[in-house]
Amino acid sequence: MTDLPLVIFTPSGKRGHFPVGTPVLTAARQLGVDLDSVCGGRGICSKCQITPSYGEFSKHGVSVAPDALTEWNSVEERYDRIRGLPKGRRLGCQACVQGDVVIDVPPESQVHRQVVRKDADTREIVMDPATVLRFVTVAEPDMHEPSGDLERLTEALQAQWGIEAVTVPLSVLSRLQPALRKGGWEVTVALHKGHRDTVHRILDIWPGFHEGRVYGLAIDLGSTTIAAHLTDLRNGTVKASAGAMNPQIRFGEDLMSRVSYAMMNPGGDREMTLVVREAIDGLARDLATEAGIEARDILEVVFVCNPVMHHLLLGIDPVELGQAPFALATSNSISLDAAELGLATLNPAARAFVLPCIAGHVGADAAAVALSEQPGQSDDLVLIVDVGTNAEILLGNRSRVLACSSPTGPAFEGAQISAGQRAAPGAIERVEIDPVTKAPRFRVIGSEIWSDEEGFAEATQASGITGICGSGIIEAVAELRMAGLMDARGLMGSAAQTGTERMVPQGRTHAYLLHEGPDGRQILVTQGDIRAIQLAKSALYAGARLLMDEMGVDTVDRVTLAGAFGAHISPKHAMVLGMIPDAALDKVTSAGNAAGTGARIALCSVAARAEIEETVRRITKVETAIEPRFQEHFVNANAVPHATDPFPHLGRVVTLPEVNFNTGGGAESGRRRRAR
Amino acid sequence: MTDLPLVIFTPSGKRGHFPVGTPVLTAARQLGVDLDSVCGGRGICSKCQITPSYGEFSKHGVSVAPDALTEWNSVEERYDRIRGLPKGRRLGCQACVQGDVVIDVPPESQVHRQVVRKDADTREIVMDPATVLRFVTVAEPDMHEPSGDLERLTEALQAQWGIEAVTVPLSVLSRLQPALRKGGWEVTVALHKGHRDTVHRILDIWPGFHEGRVYGLAIDLGSTTIAAHLTDLRNGTVKASAGAMNPQIRFGEDLMSRVSYAMMNPGGDREMTLVVREAIDGLARDLATEAGIEARDILEVVFVCNPVMHHLLLGIDPVELGQAPFALATSNSISLDAAELGLATLNPAARAFVLPCIAGHVGADAAAVALSEQPGQSDDLVLIVDVGTNAEILLGNRSRVLACSSPTGPAFEGAQISAGQRAAPGAIERVEIDPVTKAPRFRVIGSEIWSDEEGFAEATQASGITGICGSGIIEAVAELRMAGLMDARGLMGSAAQTGTERMVPQGRTHAYLLHEGPDGRQILVTQGDIRAIQLAKSALYAGARLLMDEMGVDTVDRVTLAGAFGAHISPKHAMVLGMIPDAALDKVTSAGNAAGTGARIALCSVAARAEIEETVRRITKVETAIEPRFQEHFVNANAVPHATDPFPHLGRVVTLPEVNFNTGGGAESGRRRRAR
Repeated sequence: MTDLPLVIFTPSGKRGHFPVGTPVLTAARQLGVDLDSVCGGRGICSKCQITPSYGEFSKHGVSVAPDALTEWNSVEERYDRIRGLPKGRRLGCQACVQGDVVIDVPPESQVHRQVVRKDADTREIVMDPATVLRFVTVAEPDMHEPSGDLERLTEALQAQWGIEAVTVPLSVLSRLQPALRKGGWEVTVALHKGHRDTVHRILDIWPGFHEGRVYGLAIDLGSTTIAAHLTDLRNGTVKASAGAMNPQIRFGEDLMSRVSYAMMNPGGDREMTLVVREAIDGLARDLATEAGIEARDILEVVFVCNPVMHHLLLGIDPVELGQAPFALATSNSISLDAAELGLATLNPAARAFVLPCIAGHVGADAAAVALSEQPGQSDDLVLIVDVGTNAEILLGNRSRVLACSSPTGPAFEGAQISAGQRAAPGAIERVEIDPVTKAPRFRVIGSEIWSDEEGFAEATQASGITGICGSGIIEAVAELRMAGLMDARGLMGSAAQTGTERMVPQGRTHAYLLHEGPDGRQILVTQGDIRAIQLAKSALYAGARLLMDEMGVDTVDRVTLAGAFGAHISPKHAMVLGMIPDAALDKVTSAGNAAGTGARIALCSVAARAEIEETVRRITKVETAIEPRFQEHFVNANAVPHATDPFPHLGRVVTLPEVNFNTGGGAESGRRRRAR
Repeated sequence: MTDLPLVIFTPSGKRGHFPVGTPVLTAARQLGVDLDSVCGGRGICSKCQITPSYGEFSKHGVSVAPDALTEWNSVEERYDRIRGLPKGRRLGCQACVQGDVVIDVPPESQVHRQVVRKDADTREIVMDPATVLRFVTVAEPDMHEPSGDLERLTEALQAQWGIEAVTVPLSVLSRLQPALRKGGWEVTVALHKGHRDTVHRILDIWPGFHEGRVYGLAIDLGSTTIAAHLTDLRNGTVKASAGAMNPQIRFGEDLMSRVSYAMMNPGGDREMTLVVREAIDGLARDLATEAGIEARDILEVVFVCNPVMHHLLLGIDPVELGQAPFALATSNSISLDAAELGLATLNPAARAFVLPCIAGHVGADAAAVALSEQPGQSDDLVLIVDVGTNAEILLGNRSRVLACSSPTGPAFEGAQISAGQRAAPGAIERVEIDPVTKAPRFRVIGSEIWSDEEGFAEATQASGITGICGSGIIEAVAELRMAGLMDARGLMGSAAQTGTERMVPQGRTHAYLLHEGPDGRQILVTQGDIRAIQLAKSALYAGARLLMDEMGVDTVDRVTLAGAFGAHISPKHAMVLGMIPDAALDKVTSAGNAAGTGARIALCSVAARAEIEETVRRITKVETAIEPRFQEHFVNANAVPHATDPFPHLGRVVTLPEVNFNTGGGAESGRRRRAR
C-alpha cells in the first residue's frame, strides 16, 4: 500500500493515489475522470468546479479530514467575488490534494457525458465535437528571436493543449495580431478537426477568455421540408429548432421531377442549388435570432439528405441520378467550408460536413438513420422506415444490414391530397369513423380535444380546421376501410351502397365528407386521395418486402417508423393500410426524426462520423428501380387488406368488412393479393 | 551471369537485365532512369519516346541485333499517323525488350532534369513541381456495387499512379461526372500536393488525354515593382515574363510610409491589399495573353516579397511591422487557394504558395535569394546584396548564414532623384566623366552606342533621352568623385572651384550638367541627388557591415549583387561609391533577380519549399532597426572614399583626387571615415 493520499471521484467511482500537492484537475485527468476545463487550469473558465466531501465514507473506506484539500486560494476568491461560485464548490485546477479525499464532479462539470434526447427515447452519446474552444496564453514576440505571432500561438497550443499542428484561414490570420494584443497575449481560439483531418484548423479567435459560445447546425434536408437544429457544441443541447419548406418544390414535387427539371432546363440545377442554399441560410439566421445568439458563433453545420438533395446542395447536376446506373458524383462524406455552400450567415470560417451516401438512391439521410438507430447493433431483426417523399428503408441485425429507398411521393406529407396540407395547427391529424353510424370524429393539430367532445369549437377557433396532414389522411383511409366504406381495392361506395349521406358523388366516383365548416367549405377524402395513398404505401411496402426477400425472411421482429412525419403515424392504421409488414403492434415504435438525430450525433462526435463511414461501407445496397420484384411487390401491395386477413396483433381484433364497390367488370377475387 | 537481355540507357549509363517482353518504360522505371510518362504507359501521351541504337557497342560491350525490341506495333502506328513520331523513335511503353539493347533517352523525354537559367549563370534543379497532370482510366459505375464516380477515380489514381488519397474542391467535383462520360471513362486530372500536404488535391479535370498545359506564376512582389514569370510546370521553362509598377506606390514610396498610411487611415491596409491584388491579376492576364495560353491553365502561383508586401498581399494590417518588436503575423510559408487572394484570372482552384519570412524586416524575398544563391552551401564567405527599395542582405558560408534588411529607400531605383526614372528605353544607364575635360559620355537603355560615338543621335531618336535610371545615377556619382568634381563628403564644387562650366549653380549648391537636349531640357545631377544616393548607399553598406561585425570578419571573399536592378550595377562604381565592402573586382558578380529565381525554383520543386523552410530556420536574423552599431555604421558610411583609399582591386588603379569643396565650417579631416 502506498502512503500517498487516496482520491476518489464520484459519481464515476474512479480512484487513485496522488502526491500531496496534486491539483484535483490533474488527478481527474490522470484517472480519465470526465472533468471539464476550457482555460487549461488557469482558474479562468470555472468549468472544473468540484464539490469535496468531508467526514467518514464507510462505503469507500476512507475518512476525509477538513484539510484534505489546500485552502481556498486567491484565484478562487477572485473568481467567487466576480462571477460567484456555488457554496461548497472549489475550482479543480486550484484545489490541491493534501490527504484522502472524496470529490464529486457535478453534472455541469462533466462535459463528455451527454444525452441526445430523441422524441421517443433517449440515448447517450459521448461528446466528441469536431469544433471546440481553447484558451491559450501566447509568448510575446522577441525581436532577437523573431518568429510570427501565429507560430508562437501554435507553440502555445502544442504546449498547453497537445495540438500538434494548425492551419489558419486568411480571415482569421488577419485578426490574429489585434486579438493577441487586445487580450494581453491570452486568446480563445475555436479549433476544428474533422475525422479525416490531420491538423487542426483555427476557425475563429477572440481576445482573452471567451465564454463558451460555440454552436453547430444539424440539418435534415428533405425533398419537401428542411429541418434545422441549432446545437450547443459544448454539451449537445438543442438551443432552437426550425423547419421550412424546401423551395425547390416549385421545380418539382418529387425527386425525379427535379432531376427532370435539371435535364430539361439548362442551368436548372444551379437555380435549385441557389434557392435551397438561400433557404438554409435563412433558417440559420432565424435560428440564431430565436436563440438570441450571434450567427458568427455558428461554427459548423452537418447535413443529411437524399442523394438528389445532396447533389443539388453541393452544386452538382443530379442528372446521373435520374438514369441507370444511378452513379453518385461522390458517395463518401464531404468536409468543406460552409462558405463554399453560400452559407453567408454563419461564421466566415465555419465548416460543413455532409454524411456519406449509401448508393445512388439511398442517401446520407439513410446513413443518418443508421447512425441513429444502429440496426447493425440490434439482436432482433429490425425494419426501419424513414417516411418522407422518398422513403429510406433499412432492414438488419448484427449479422447484416440492407438498405434501399422507395419513391413514395409526397402524398404521406399531405401533398397530392385534395385537402392535404403540412402538419401545422388546424390540420386534421387523427381520424376515427364509427363502423355503425359511419360518422367521423377527428382531432386537429394544436388541440387534444376530439371533434365530438365538448370545447372542440372553442379550442380550434384560433387555428380553424384547415385541411388534412399526412397522419390524418393515413388514418382516414384506414378507417374508411374498417368502417366498410371502402373495399379492398380502395374503391369507395356510393351513399346508396354504404347507406350514409357522408358519401357524396364526385364525378364518376364518390368522396367521403370528413368535415364541413360553417362557411360551407368541405374537407373531403376523395377517390383520388385514396389512389395517391395507395401508390405511396405500395411503394413503401414493396421496398420493405424487397429487403425481406433479399434477407430471406417473411417477417421482422420490430418495425421502427422514422422521419419527422413517421413519428406521428399510428402503427395500427399503418398496418391496416398495409404500409408496413405485419408485426406485433407493441413492436412497432417511432424513432422520431431519426435522420435529424443522426445529423446531431455526427455534429457532436467525430467518432460517430468515422463510425458511419465504416457502417455505410458494410451496408448491402438494394436498388429498387431495376429490381423486377419491386414492381411485382408494388402491384401486389396495392390492395388494402381483405376481410380474410386476421389482425391478431392489433390490440383489439379488427375484422374488416367484406365489401365490394366494384362498379363493373370482372369480380374481385377474395384471394389475398398482398405478396407473401 | 544472367541470360536475361541487358538493357543500357544513355546518356545516364544505367543498365540492368530484364526478362524478354519487358516494356522499355518499365525497365527505365526500375532502374530509376528519367523517362517521362503522363498517360501511365497507355501509348497516348508519347512522352516516353526513346531511340534504340543497333549494332556493335564496344564501349558498352554489347552487340544489339535488329530485333532487340519488339516490332513497331499498332499503338505506335496510330500515334505516328495521327501526331507523328520522329524517325527512329519508339514509344517506351510499347517497345518491349527482346535482346540486349542500347536505348537513348532524348532530352525532351527527360522530365526531371531541368535547367533554371539565370541572367548570369545557369543552375540545374530537379523538377519536382507541386502540380502535375495525370491521365487515368476510371472504372464505370456498377449499380450492384454502388460507389461514387469520385471514389472510383480515387481508386484508379491509387492503382495507376500510387496516389493514396485526394480531395476535390466543389468547382471540380461539379465537373467530374460530365468529364468522365465525355472522355469515355478516361480523364486527365491536375493534381497538387504541397510539401506539407498529406493528400493530393485535384485542381482540374479534362475529358480524355489533355496535352500537358499546366502553368505556374513565379512572382517577385517588390515595393516598387512586381515581376512575374509564367512558367511551364512540365519542364520549368519560362513562357513569358512581365513587370509592372506596384500601384501601392501612391500610398507611399517606401515600406514605412505605407505602414504609416495603414496606421493613419482606417481601412488603408485594405485599399493597398486590393490594388496590389488587382495588379497581380492584371499581370497574370497579360502574361496569359502574351504566351497565348488559357489563363485557366495557370494552376499555381508562388510569391516572394518583403514582410510588408507579404502582409498586404495576404490582407493583414502591417501595423506591427512598423514598430518594435516588428512581429510578423506569421513567418512560416503559406499555402492557400489563389482565389483567397482575389486572383480571379487563374484557374478557380489554383493554389498559391508564399515563401517563409525570415524576420520582421527580412522577408520571403530574402528567403528566395537564399534559395537561389545558397550561401549556406558556399565554401568561401559570400555577401549577397539584393538591392531594391529595401535591401536584403545575406552573409554566410557553410558554417553560418546571417541576414538583415536595410531601408535604402527608392533612390537606387531612380526615385527621389531629380532626373530619375525607371529603367526603360531612354534612361541613361551608363556614365563616364573624363577626369581631364570633365565632359560626360553616357549610354541610354535601348542602344549600345555611347553618346560621343557616331550614330548615337539616330540610335536614340525613338526613345529620346528621358532621365537617369538607378545604375546611371550610381555611375554618375562615382564618376563625379573620380573626376574630382565631388569631395569625399559628397559635396560638389562650383564652376570656379572645379574649372568646368558643366557645374551650374543651383540655389546655394551646384549641379552637374549631364545632358542638355535640343529643346533645352537639362538632365542634371544635383546635390540633392547625391545626398539621396549617399543615404541609400550608407544604409546598404551599414547593413553589410553589421553582418560582418556579427560574423567577426573585416572582409568577405565574394560579393553577389542581386535584384532586378542589382544585375545592372557596375561593381567598380558600386565599390567606388562605397555601396559594398571592398572585394576583388572579379569576385563581385551579379545574380540577376535572385529573388525571382528563388520563386521559380519553389514553383518547380516541392523539395525546394521544404529546403527553404529548413534554411530559414537556421539563418541568424539581425535586426538593423534596434542595433546601435547600425546607426554608427550608417553615419560613418556617408563619405565617398577619400584619396588615401587605394583601390588595388579595381582592375586599374583608381586614385581619387583629394578635393574639398567645403564652403565653410571646420576643416574636413583626411582620416578615412568609413568604419573599419
